[in-house]
Amino acid sequence: MFITVEGIEGSGKTTLLTSLDLWFQQQGRKTILTREPGSGYLGKKLRSILLNPQEQLSREAELFLFLADRAQHVADIIRPALDRGDDVLCDRFTDSTLAYQGLGRQFFNEQWLRQCNNIASLAIRPDLTLLLDMDPGQALERARSRNMRAGIAEAEGRFEAESIEFHRRIREGFRKIAQMEPERIIMFDASLSPQDLLTLAISIISARLKG
Amino acid sequence: MFITVEGIEGSGKTTLLTSLDLWFQQQGRKTILTREPGSGYLGKKLRSILLNPQEQLSREAELFLFLADRAQHVADIIRPALDRGDDVLCDRFTDSTLAYQGLGRQFFNEQWLRQCNNIASLAIRPDLTLLLDMDPGQALERARSRNMRAGIAEAEGRFEAESIEFHRRIREGFRKIAQMEPERIIMFDASLSPQDLLTLAISIISARLKG
Repeated sequence: MFITVEGIEGSGKTTLLTSLDLWFQQQGRKTILTREPGSGYLGKKLRSILLNPQEQLSREAELFLFLADRAQHVADIIRPALDRGDDVLCDRFTDSTLAYQGLGRQFFNEQWLRQCNNIASLAIRPDLTLLLDMDPGQALERARSRNMRAGIAEAEGRFEAESIEFHRRIREGFRKIAQMEPERIIMFDASLSPQDLLTLAISIISARLKG
Repeated sequence: MFITVEGIEGSGKTTLLTSLDLWFQQQGRKTILTREPGSGYLGKKLRSILLNPQEQLSREAELFLFLADRAQHVADIIRPALDRGDDVLCDRFTDSTLAYQGLGRQFFNEQWLRQCNNIASLAIRPDLTLLLDMDPGQALERARSRNMRAGIAEAEGRFEAESIEFHRRIREGFRKIAQMEPERIIMFDASLSPQDLLTLAISIISARLKG
């Protein structure tokens, strides 16, 4: 099973994924937990470029770097894991490209972006996507305090540094994408407690695993 | 005027461009000489990934890195130069993407690739493209002996390391692209002497500058 978790910065993706990974292991399933951008050998080289607000990346260069990162990530990590029969849990995937570069930057044609996603992901689509929906003001506060604690406010703040309107557009973008694929994308209220979110996620995943 | 020079490895692009750059300067014109991949701050970071045969890049990742490199190159260097009224001479541009990633790798849809090129180049197209056409066997021998002399056989041999059939497909790809845009792309027999090639190129450029 290929599961992705999506949402704006600070919506709790990492917390949920860490708990889900543990749950999968407790079920005796072989699982890999990965993320975009920045997994695999190419991703490690690109992550510091993509997430550093000091870099004067054009929006076109930014988009193509994210796609290059995904292409190598799918080829080296996600596809081999799925071929082995492992479950894959991934923090951000194609929907983030649509929401951030498409609807957030309000620039690229959606149909062309979907073709780009299809090429970069080797036409592999998630079986299930959990969308953590949250008010951007609340979420950003959480992301900033997390970055401060980790001492990465400068190094990884590229998207956190954007305006609140930018994050509102992305939230709306995610909600729109979810409406277009209600079978695949399940939206959660991310202001619930981590334990409640985990319980909800597990109930959905269990049903799909049995189905 | 925005002029690009295209052709397979070893076809003499750099020699011609260096002479053309000098000629433009002698005409009292402000000119920049640049190249893809690897110009500008992002290009410098990407060039070693793109041209190193040790890197296990997937063809999709390779394509998107070339496009990211181009996007930043156009935004930071080519567009500002053209806006200032300078001439731009560029070693490889959008036609290389079509020939190498499209027809050489025989994988990506041509129409989608043209859209990618259009996004990456900010819809800026060359006024004139000089295509240096040459037998791949002859050209590769030249490229290899140049790399050996420069001690970069290992470091920059990504495309030189490909099979002769790969380079034949690229040559044919370039010829096909040239036929589709005879106004913009002028094809030369690259086995002519460097002096003869320069004379031919200058005669064409002079006519366009006057016209």
